[in-house]
This record gives sequence, C-alpha cells and structure tokens, in this order.
Amino acid sequence: MTWIADPEFAPDRPFGPQTLPYGVLTTGNGPVVAVRVGRHALPLRDIAGELGPRLSELVVGDSLDPLLAAGREAWRELRERLRTIVTADSAPPGANLVRTDWHTLAMPFTVGDFVDFYSSRYHAENTGRILRRGSSPLPENFEHLPLGYHGRAGTVHVSGTDVHRPSGQRKTAGDVQPAFGPTRRLDFEAEVGFVCGGEPAAHLSTADFPEHVFGAVLVNDWSARDIQSWESKPLGPLLSKSFATSMSGWITPLEALEHARIPVPKPEFPLQAYLVEEEPWGLDLALEVRCNETLLARPRFEHMAWSAAQQLAHLTVGGAPVRPGDLYASGTVSGPEREQRGCLLELTWGGSDPITLADGEQRTFLQDGDRVTLSGSAPGPDGSAVGLGEVTGTVLAAVRR
Amino acid sequence: MTWIADPEFAPDRPFGPQTLPYGVLTTGNGPVVAVRVGRHALPLRDIAGELGPRLSELVVGDSLDPLLAAGREAWRELRERLRTIVTADSAPPGANLVRTDWHTLAMPFTVGDFVDFYSSRYHAENTGRILRRGSSPLPENFEHLPLGYHGRAGTVHVSGTDVHRPSGQRKTAGDVQPAFGPTRRLDFEAEVGFVCGGEPAAHLSTADFPEHVFGAVLVNDWSARDIQSWESKPLGPLLSKSFATSMSGWITPLEALEHARIPVPKPEFPLQAYLVEEEPWGLDLALEVRCNETLLARPRFEHMAWSAAQQLAHLTVGGAPVRPGDLYASGTVSGPEREQRGCLLELTWGGSDPITLADGEQRTFLQDGDRVTLSGSAPGPDGSAVGLGEVTGTVLAAVRR
Repeated sequence: MTWIADPEFAPDRPFGPQTLPYGVLTTGNGPVVAVRVGRHALPLRDIAGELGPRLSELVVGDSLDPLLAAGREAWRELRERLRTIVTADSAPPGANLVRTDWHTLAMPFTVGDFVDFYSSRYHAENTGRILRRGSSPLPENFEHLPLGYHGRAGTVHVSGTDVHRPSGQRKTAGDVQPAFGPTRRLDFEAEVGFVCGGEPAAHLSTADFPEHVFGAVLVNDWSARDIQSWESKPLGPLLSKSFATSMSGWITPLEALEHARIPVPKPEFPLQAYLVEEEPWGLDLALEVRCNETLLARPRFEHMAWSAAQQLAHLTVGGAPVRPGDLYASGTVSGPEREQRGCLLELTWGGSDPITLADGEQRTFLQDGDRVTLSGSAPGPDGSAVGLGEVTGTVLAAVRR
Repeated sequence: MTWIADPEFAPDRPFGPQTLPYGVLTTGNGPVVAVRVGRHALPLRDIAGELGPRLSELVVGDSLDPLLAAGREAWRELRERLRTIVTADSAPPGANLVRTDWHTLAMPFTVGDFVDFYSSRYHAENTGRILRRGSSPLPENFEHLPLGYHGRAGTVHVSGTDVHRPSGQRKTAGDVQPAFGPTRRLDFEAEVGFVCGGEPAAHLSTADFPEHVFGAVLVNDWSARDIQSWESKPLGPLLSKSFATSMSGWITPLEALEHARIPVPKPEFPLQAYLVEEEPWGLDLALEVRCNETLLARPRFEHMAWSAAQQLAHLTVGGAPVRPGDLYASGTVSGPEREQRGCLLELTWGGSDPITLADGEQRTFLQDGDRVTLSGSAPGPDGSAVGLGEVTGTVLAAVRR
C-alpha cells in the first residue's frame, strides 16, 4: 500500500508505478522537475535529500537538461530510486504531491536539433496518392532508408500551447499567381517523438538506441497543407511546418516501454547493415486522436516501417552526432484502416471527403478554435498499460500584420 | 596614429578600423571574446574597465551569446566604443594584443536553428539542368519566395574544423539497389551566413533586418551529392548536408556592410507585400573559393535573387520567431559566368568537366586531404574594403565502422 492516495496511481492504471514519466511543472516558485504518479506529480526538488547528491543534482533545476546529459546509468538509478520512494508505505520527508490538473507543464528540456521522419508506409502512400497523382505513390527510396528532414527546434512547444493559424504563400493548380494569406488547409499529424540524451555520439548502431534515447513523447506536427504543396519542391517543407510543433510535457522513460517492443514489419528489400536490428525496437503503441470531443482516429505505431532505433542509426551514420536534447519524431502514424490515419489530409482524402464531428459539424481541415489532442498507451507488465503523455493544442486565428 | 602597430590595421586594409569583426579566441585561459584588428585580436575581457559595466558584461564571457541577445542599440554602442579605443593614440590599461595566427578560433556563439536558403537563380538553374534533366531547370516557386530548408544546428563548426568524408546511401540511375559507403561526390558550397540577435520576434518586415541580424559570416555548406540525389525526394536533403557545415569564426558586424548595400535584381513577378524592400538589403560582396592553393571561383553576392532581409521576412512570416543565435545562410552563391560558380557540382558540370588545380591534378569532386577556403570582402567607406572572415576546412578520410 503506497502513501500516494490516488486511485490512478495503481498498477492497472496508465500512470501507475510502471510508468513514472518525467516533466517540468510550472509552480508559484518557478518550474520544477517532477515525476508523475497517477493524477498527481511529485516535485523532485522537495525530496532531493532522498535521492543522494549525485542524482539530486540532476533534477533540482528547472529543466531536464542535466538528467538528459547524464546518460543511461543515471536514468536507471533515478527510476529505481523513485519507484522505491513512490511505492513505499510512507511519504519521504518534504514530499509534496501536487495535482497535475492544477498546474501547467513547462517545456521540459532545451531542444537541440529536431528531425521529423516519414516512416509510415501507409501515410507515405496515402499522401503520395492524394498529392502526387500520376506518379508512384511510394517514393523509390522509402523502403531503403528512413526518410526525414530537419524541423525547427525553436518552435517545439509543450502541450497546452495555443497555435496561431500560420500565413504563407499557396498556389493551387488553377491559380496563375500564388496568393498570400492564412492557410486554408491546417492539419495535425499524430506522431511519436524520441528525446535524446547521453554523451554526444555519431555512427550509432540500432543496439545503441537505449543508450541515447531517454524517453518517448507524443508529437503533433502541425502542418499547413496548401503552403506545403507550394513550397516543398525541391527542398522539402519549411514554413508549412516551422510555425509550431507540439510535444507532450510528460516524457515516458524508454525503460517503461520494454513490454511494448515488437519487430518492425519485414522489409521488402535487404537492409543496409547499419539499419539491421538484432533486438527489435518497433513499439506496440496505441494512439488516439481527438478533435474537440470527437475521436477521429486510432493510429497504431506497430504499422511503422522503421523503428526509432533504425531512425537513430540513420541520423548518425553520416557522422552527425546526437546531442542531449535532440528530438526526433516518427512521422505521421497511419495504418491500413481508415480509422488508423494520423492526419486530416488522409482522413478527409485531401479535403474531398469531410468528416463529421460529434456535434454534427463537418471538417475537411482545422478551423479556428479547434482543439486537437493526442493520447496513447503501451503494453506494460502483467497486462497493464503504460501511459504516454497527452499533447493538446488549440488553433487560434491567424495573426494579422 | 593608432597604438596598434600592425600594417594590416589600416583604413585601406580589409581588417582595418572600418571592419572590426567579433570572434572567440581559444587561449590558455579558455575562450575569450575578441575584436579583430588587422592581424591581431584584442580580447575584450582585458579592457572590460574601458567599456563600462553594461557593455562589458556582454563580452567578458566565453561566447558572443550575451551580445547577440542584447540587441542593436548595444551592438552600436559597443562598436563605437571599440572604434574609439582601437584608434586612440595609446593603449587602454590592460590591453593585450594577440596574433590571430597564433590562436585558433572557437565557435563564437550557440547556434539555435540553422536554415539554409537557395537564393541564387544561377545555382538553381545550373543544378536543375545537371540533376533534373528534362524538367524546367528553375523550380516554379523560385521566383516567388526564397526557398530554404532547416539544416542541422549541432554540426555547424567554426573555421579550421576538419571534416570527415561522410558515408551514406547512394543509388545512381544504373543501380538496381542502393549502395552504402563514403560519398564519391563530396562538394563545398560557398555561401554567406547571417547571425541573428535581439529579442525573439516573428512577422518581421524587411526593414526589421538590422534589428535582428548582428552580422555576416562566410559559410561552407559541405554537400555529398550522391547521397543528396538519392535521399532528397520528397523531403529535401538530410544526411547529404547534416554531417558538417563550416562557418567563419570572425563575424563582420552588419553595420560594417553599410557601404555594400545594393538592390537585389528586379524580380520577374510582382512580389508579395511581405517581401518588398523599401531600402535595399542586397549586398555587393566578392567571394573567393580556393581548393588547396588554387583559386577555383570568384562568386559575387550581387547575383543573389533574394536579399538576406527578404529571407528573414520569409522565415518569420508564418509565425516562427527568430532567436538570438539563429543562423541562416544564403544558399550557394553562383553567378552567370563559369568562374562565378560556387560549388564543384556546377564548376565541373556534375563531374563531367574536371577542373585542373595549380599542381596539375584534376578534380571532379573533393578528395581526402583537400582544403577548401572561402574568403570575401565588401566595399567599405572611401574606397576601402571590409573583410569577411575566412572559412577553411580540410577533408579527412571517412570514418570506418
């Protein structure tokens, strides 16, 4: 019987002791590093004395940066120590549980580089069919390497941050000249992100993955489809993505996802040696996408063609090191079924097939005021579920200048 | 008559008192912020007492980060104060001139986001003709917006950093399967970079440019052309660029480039309002590209289709703020003449027309051991020249794993 009197902090609940995600709470005394226990959070500064000097110095500041840099051994030790503390019969001296719904979360770490992959075959095929009619839906290189691009680190925001509809140039097939204005095709993309840590290192193998990835978040890679279509050739997306990317504030430690590991689907071509996985790092994650109160989709991460370990190996094979605070995301998680599509572009087939929300309204793309929420979970020990941090954001009207 | 006895610190020399670039020197006592005077550098920590408390606290640390954040008024004041100090008859107390050739330069600031543009029409047309035969050489959107993509901030290195040949996947038209290995088509790209500062801000006009750009550097955007061709569709370059980008260690203040301002070439289409320049921010910069001892090209920045002010307006028009430490580069600077081409891809026309170095050796792309050096200058007051910081780097053999 734990001292934490919270029915959500139970082994059969997603934020029970099998999960223990980290985040940074905004409090009256500034941001504090905390671990989540059910509906509560335990600020670690208050129990620094219980953690010992080496571990406590990693978590007494206002961000997870020192913990990310500390590396896997410290991550393991801290998790083990915290599990002992939160499952004990009595509270440690100084412990001060706070309600997560009474506090907002701050951005938990300083983002170094942000890379967004494109690793769902279903998403790639669907977008190919919708946007590049006439050519083969799947790019020729898709099955040989995890495609990706660098996104904007400075606009990665924590869950709860509102997002202004971006403006930009767009030009559709019928237009003689491009027009400028607020996007008419604002979309979300349901993704899973991976937060890097440990010593900066390049040329990583897939087996190095747990040494350099601290944990997982959910990511909404907001996208302006009309701006994207016009700007993306030949260099890829820029303004259509750079205005905002939202990330859950609670980071689920990689260790908590051990029971979710599955092989990625067998590739159709022989893999280059650096992409081979000896131990599987595919993950059996179930996502849910909501717009306002309506459940729009239930994408499953098991359908991804490339694992996060393969993505990390690819990212570093050219010599670029990953640094603590680097973040990379999976790309839109979409599966073979319609209800498994992770963005409106696919769900409404390029806007041609509107979806109906619970209140009877229709959507092709997002309207101002819409609130998009991603949630998810993974299999945990003994049939339990491990929760992934929720990411939510509301669309605000475009800024007029 | 100044107290600085250095013939290169003269009004008719590129690093005379009209230039005064900033950098961070590596010394026995750690990195120090310094201003360049001819062949010498003046560490600012030593003369902090002469700068007053407000200015001195911006430059007594080991990077230019605080100065970048301080904004234009501080940049102006510091420059004016330093000009008075370095042109005085006698040295200020504590001043300690050091030889620039006896010290290496450190990375002068923390790079936030790195964006690389593609703003030379000649470069875009040439690469289109070489790489995308059969389609129109210039992308349809080129004349309507400054095309660009996010690069990797974590691998922006200071001049003098050696660069390992990257490995990656490549597949040429005749190959059935992609192969993996060290790039066979390693290239440089001669570019001009702009270092951002001031308060983070979005929705900037072209007139806001001097409020948010601290100064200019030369940038070598190393590129692996075979990796680039295979990976770039549809999301743009990733590993072909992310292994390394080199930047000059001396940052020429924007104020020193006042005499270089010229209008950008008149566009063929009406510009969107946010891209219109009331005051011209094109720059008349002359670059030189050397491989080992051979002068390969003399690109001129006047040929760029988009100014750095237009690039900044474009970057921020969607709502993404620029932050102090953000860096953006122009894209390869190429002009209409063969000797004005800023990369080997163009100079050797895709490897089909080798160039001959001074020692008689031929090159299509870079070989291990090759040293690439970019230098440049701008018109200064009274017929003088304003120097741009040199950027150099040597190609090392691929890392074998």
